This record gives sequence, structure tokens and C-alpha cells, in this order.
Amino acid sequence: MALIVQKYGGSSVGTIERIQNVARRVAHHHSQGNQVVVVVSAMQGETNRLLGLAHGLSKNPDPRELDVIASTGEQVTIGLLSIALQEQGYQAKSYTGGQVRVLTDSAFTKARILNIDRDRIIDDLNSGKIIVVAGFQGNDENGNITTLGRGGSDTSAVALAAALKADECQIYTDVDGVYTTDPRIVSDARRLDTITFEEMLEMASLGSKVLQIRSVEFAGKYKVKLRVLSSLDDPESNAPGTLITFEEKHNVEQEIISGIAFTRDEAKISIMGVEDRPGIAYAILGPVAEANIDVDMIVQNISESGHTDFSFTVNTGEYEKTLAVLERERAAGKYVAREINSDKTICKVSVVGIGMRTHAGVAAKMFRALASEGINIQVISTSEIKISVIIDEKYLELAVRVLHQAFELDQAPAEIS
Amino acid sequence: MALIVQKYGGSSVGTIERIQNVARRVAHHHSQGNQVVVVVSAMQGETNRLLGLAHGLSKNPDPRELDVIASTGEQVTIGLLSIALQEQGYQAKSYTGGQVRVLTDSAFTKARILNIDRDRIIDDLNSGKIIVVAGFQGNDENGNITTLGRGGSDTSAVALAAALKADECQIYTDVDGVYTTDPRIVSDARRLDTITFEEMLEMASLGSKVLQIRSVEFAGKYKVKLRVLSSLDDPESNAPGTLITFEEKHNVEQEIISGIAFTRDEAKISIMGVEDRPGIAYAILGPVAEANIDVDMIVQNISESGHTDFSFTVNTGEYEKTLAVLERERAAGKYVAREINSDKTICKVSVVGIGMRTHAGVAAKMFRALASEGINIQVISTSEIKISVIIDEKYLELAVRVLHQAFELDQAPAEIS
Repeated sequence: MALIVQKYGGSSVGTIERIQNVARRVAHHHSQGNQVVVVVSAMQGETNRLLGLAHGLSKNPDPRELDVIASTGEQVTIGLLSIALQEQGYQAKSYTGGQVRVLTDSAFTKARILNIDRDRIIDDLNSGKIIVVAGFQGNDENGNITTLGRGGSDTSAVALAAALKADECQIYTDVDGVYTTDPRIVSDARRLDTITFEEMLEMASLGSKVLQIRSVEFAGKYKVKLRVLSSLDDPESNAPGTLITFEEKHNVEQEIISGIAFTRDEAKISIMGVEDRPGIAYAILGPVAEANIDVDMIVQNISESGHTDFSFTVNTGEYEKTLAVLERERAAGKYVAREINSDKTICKVSVVGIGMRTHAGVAAKMFRALASEGINIQVISTSEIKISVIIDEKYLELAVRVLHQAFELDQAPAEIS
Repeated sequence: MALIVQKYGGSSVGTIERIQNVARRVAHHHSQGNQVVVVVSAMQGETNRLLGLAHGLSKNPDPRELDVIASTGEQVTIGLLSIALQEQGYQAKSYTGGQVRVLTDSAFTKARILNIDRDRIIDDLNSGKIIVVAGFQGNDENGNITTLGRGGSDTSAVALAAALKADECQIYTDVDGVYTTDPRIVSDARRLDTITFEEMLEMASLGSKVLQIRSVEFAGKYKVKLRVLSSLDDPESNAPGTLITFEEKHNVEQEIISGIAFTRDEAKISIMGVEDRPGIAYAILGPVAEANIDVDMIVQNISESGHTDFSFTVNTGEYEKTLAVLERERAAGKYVAREINSDKTICKVSVVGIGMRTHAGVAAKMFRALASEGINIQVISTSEIKISVIIDEKYLELAVRVLHQAFELDQAPAEIS
């Protein structure tokens, strides 16, 4: 008998029919002899509807009250799924975040989980019940309702799995696993049976939005066995999905590159001819961070005659705001630059793979493949297990396809017998 | 400085604009130097939408889960009203039933309030905050979410007023007070400045649906000063509404009759020629009660040659079910009757007034007025402060008008100078 935590997102519970379908899947796992704890999100569109009401009253609503409002979405779903399970003949019981004592800090709208009380759930599981828990929410130490921020239901599920020492945490989405790249762009993209946490972190942050990044960090920290599965399959199919592993050592047959990630949602800003002095990066990026703008890639080239070029990317939605901050600081004499260039029509493409740490030539292969199609690389940035390039947005699909082919990602790795 | 509890129903908070209007009214009372606690219902239509989702999954959904779902309606409103108040420059803070520790029994969907913790609210009020509390809900001793049943927000408000020893509990509705009868039927119906609790109880149960009856009982029990006011008036009008008093002794100028109440929603069932023996009323009404059918009027005439006639009324919606129960019991030989007559096309009209206890001739005046219009009385039932008759439904408006006139309810009572 295994203890499984399953998480279903908003589209999986978006209608009464889909909730019934989720109930069938949960029931299938329960009737195979497992103890099942289910974590659910709000019905699709509901969180946006609720936040829309609040924003109809204020441009900048109180975060505490936003959480009071937004947390109701998940509360409705837990009641509905419990009823659906009962209707199919199973014992089920719902818990809000507060009821299951998901203790968080008091950072409303982006709270972090501090502790979960497992006793109540264990008692209920041992009495044969299926437990349905509201994701995305908790209570702070004063009993205020908090939410974990968008996508927080994944984190709730992983945190529950850690607290309960579950055998597995299954995240059900509208894809049946993690792919070598987006199948909508590369038709022979292949589902990975396993992927490491480190690779998953790079894939998630780079735009393969299968899992919320904080949940993956959490799973790594508490060694939770995490699996991504499809909520669209036949409930009794037992499809394997993709298992996310935290083994440090890789199997010899592991491919060098696991996948090609990409995002269109970034804009590039280059500050040309800035004086190369200590503190210049902070002079430029400090005010950007203070304006609550998230910066992704940051590249600074080597200095030439005491001046350097400084590039970074921000989310397209914060592009105008970022430029305004930069011009304000420049006008105030906080830094001197020859010019500020910016471009919204770019995209970022990355090759990700834990195997590249021990294999030379990955970068060369990537750059050769892009050059063969005449794709110009504007910015390059690398880490231990990923290489990212900024290119013209119009080449996105072409670049992803040519890289997928160059690294032979459509081929399953050779088995060692 | 007074402490006021105000309650706003679903139609008063049905849209963003109406919530802003409620905020203006609350702010007006607060800026007059009062401490204000606001109790709100779910936005109009929201509770039905939520229960509809649950009933889409099950014909007979689990009451515990129904409460988890239904209680979210009020939770959304408290967040929205708090934001609206903050936007108008006031400090406001929301509380769910559980957070303000409205302790109830565990009778899901129809729980009763056992206790309310006042300390937290008093602290917040003393720091200048306006407190916004979700009506209709509480927690049982195990932390399960409970609801008080339809209209329970009135009860929440009165219970809070009692716990806080508030100076007044103001119930805002879509009428500006309690009238001598329905102004849609009698155009010169008059708003009452005061009405006694006992009269209000009779008026409420008889179809003048201004206040939920349990809230009035609660107010009487804890001596809460209760006032009915309009949420449609200008927020700064200071209109007086109707004050519900619990003074036992009446002012001399008090009119004998306070109002004419009526309902169309009842059906009459008469069981003719039943043997007049001990236990016969239980033999007939026991199975009806066991089938969870509420019985309103019950009339048994005096016995004639060992047989009697037995009449009672039920809600029209339970008419068929009631007849089925009666026929089943009769067929099983539980009682013997000559025949069962029933009629859905009836209505009940009542004159209500605490003054009738000390004034003879009210019944005679009532019967004479009805006779003058040729209206036949089918059943009569009386209490200390009310006389009810069952008549043909088609005479409803005529009867109400003729009684309103006969008791001169359009005239304000003479002042004693």
C-alpha cells in the first residue's frame, strides 16, 4: 500500500464533468489499494474572476483581503470533488489550507509554507477516507488566510507529500509528461521517462511551464518523488508520465541534452558604452530591482578602453517600465552611457541537460546548428547545465527544430544491455 | 460613541457599485463617531450558483461539503467590502465566521450559534478599524465550516450584536422598515416607527419577509435593539426605519393592530370524519413530521358523535408529498377517516397586534369586514396577538385592503400630549 499525493490544476477541474473525471481517476488509484490525498486548484477562470472583482474596486487592493477573496476558488473545488467522490461510493473529506494547518509566513499573495500538521490527515487516511485539500492557500500564525501565489497548488502538493512522507507526488496537467521540447513546434518531440531536478528547474524557468518552479525546489529539498502525468488520459490507463529524480549520478545511457526550452516573453535591453567601474552593475540593476522588475539573463562583455556593454532581459510586460527607470537614473547622473538599445522582438532558446557538464562541444554543436540556418546569435549566456541564446523572435520555431534535430532528441537513448 | 452592528443582504452587495454604496453608508456611520461592525451576505445569486454546482454532482450532496462550498460566497463579499472601505480612506479588516470564532453546533446547513469570541473584534474596533464579518457561517468545535441556513446572516448580525453588547443592530434591506401590510397591495400602507418583538415574530412567520425569524427570537432573547432600514436610501439620509422593541408594556397611544400579514404559499388539507380518540392527532401528523414536512396551522373542530374534522396547512411545495404520506398511513390502517379534502388555491390572512390582548372585539371586527365583501372564511386559528383565516386565494388582495381599512392602519396613532 502506497501513500500518493495527487494534484489537479484548474483546467482539470474546470467543469462538473471534469471534476467527475478527476474523481474516477482518484478512485482508481484508491481502489488499487493506495491511500490518496488530492490537492486541487480553483476551477479554470475562477481565480481571475475573483481578482477581477477586487480590481474593480481598487487599482491596488489590500493583499490580505485579496487572499481572503482568492482562496475561495480552491475551497469550492474541494467541496465539489469530495461530493463527486462520495457520489461514486467513496468516503471523502475536504480540508481548507487553514483546516489542515498549512502554516505560512504572512507575505500575503506570495506566502511561503513553514509547516503542515500531518496528524489529522493520517487519522483520516487510516480510516479509509480519501482526503481533498485546497491548494494555493494556508494560514499565518495569527489565523489570517494566505495564498502562495500563482501556481502555488503545485507547491502545496509537494509540501503535503513531504509532510506525509508520501511515496509519490503526482502532478496532473494537460500534458502527459515533460518533453524534449514543445510538441506543437517539433512534431517528433519525445516524452522523457525521467528528468533530473536540476534539468527540470532549468526547463521550468525557461518556459516549459509544466511545473511551478518553487514546487520543484521544494521537492528537491525534501527528496519528494515527483511525477508529471496527464489528466486527459483514460483514468485507468496507468500511463507513466515523467518521473523527476534527484539522483546526483546519472545513468550512463542518459542523453547529454534533455531538451530545448524557449520563451517569447522577454525583451532585451542593452546599455552601450558604460564606464567599467566597480558598482556599475548595481547602479544600473539596483533601481530596476527596487521597482520590483524581475531580470532574467544578465550579460556583461569584457571591457574595452575603460567602457563596456551591459545587456539584460526582462518580461515583455515590464519593458516600458524598465526603460523609464533606466532613463530616470541616467538623467540623474547615476551612470553614464553612450546609448540604450532595446528590442522586444527577440526570443530566448536554451539547450538543457545535466549531461553537458561532462561532455565538451555542446556549445559548439549548438552554435553550428544555428549558423547552418543563418540564425544570428545576439547574446549568449551559459550555466553548468544550460546554454541560452537570444535570437530574433521570427527564428524561434526554426531554431528549436534545428536544435532538436542536431541533438537527436527524437531518438530514445541507447540501452546498455 | 455608539457601537453599531450593520447587516447587508445579498441584493445590497450584488454588484461592485452596490458594494461601493454600502461602503459609503458604513463610512458615514463611522465618521459620525460610531464603532461599526458590518455583517454581509453573499452577492445576490452567488449562493444559488454554488449550490447549483454541488447539485450538478449529486441529488443529495453531503451537508458538510455543501457548507464548505456555500460559505465561500460571504467570504468573497467581506474581502470586497473591506477593499471598498480602504479605497474610501478607512481602515477595514475582514473576518470569516471561523476567524471571529463564531462557534456553532455541527448541524451542517442549519447550524446554531453557541458562542462568539468578542476580544479580537473589540481590539480592532479600539484601534479605529471597521470590521467586516461574513454572515451565515461559523465553525464547529472540530474546526469544520458550518452554515446557519438561508437568511442566517441576520442571525449572525444579531448574535454579534449580543456578544459585543452593541448599542444597536441595523438590518439593511430593500424596504425602509416594517409596514402595516405589503405596500404593493395597499398603497397607503404605513411604515411603523416601532413594532414589538412578538408582533415581528408573527409578521415574519406570516410572510412579511423582512427579517429571518430566528434572528428576531435571538434579539428578543438577548435584548438586542434591532432596527430595519433601507439600503436603497441616500447613504447619508439618517432615515429612522422601524425599531423592534422588547418592551413588555405598550405605550397607551399604541394602535391595537400593527399590521396585516398574508401568504399564498400554503395548501390546506382536511381529514373529515376521523374517530375522536386520544392519539389521533399524532397518528395523522407524526408521519408527516417524520417525512420532514413543516406543518403551519393546525385546527381540530369539536367532536360530533365521536368523529371530528382535522385541518392543517403545509407549504404548497410539499402538498403532493403530504397527501402521499396521509394516504399511505390510511391504507395501512393507522387511522380511519371518511374522506381527505385538499385545496391548493387558498391563502392565509392574519391581523397581528400586541394590543389585541387587551381589546375585545378584534375578531368580530375582522370577520365583519370580510363578510361585508362576501369573503367566505374556511378555517380560523387564533393566538394571543394574532388571528389568522384561510380564504379562497382569489380574495387575497381584497381581504388585505378591507382589513387594512377596517383597522384604520393608514392613520398614524393619535399622540397623547
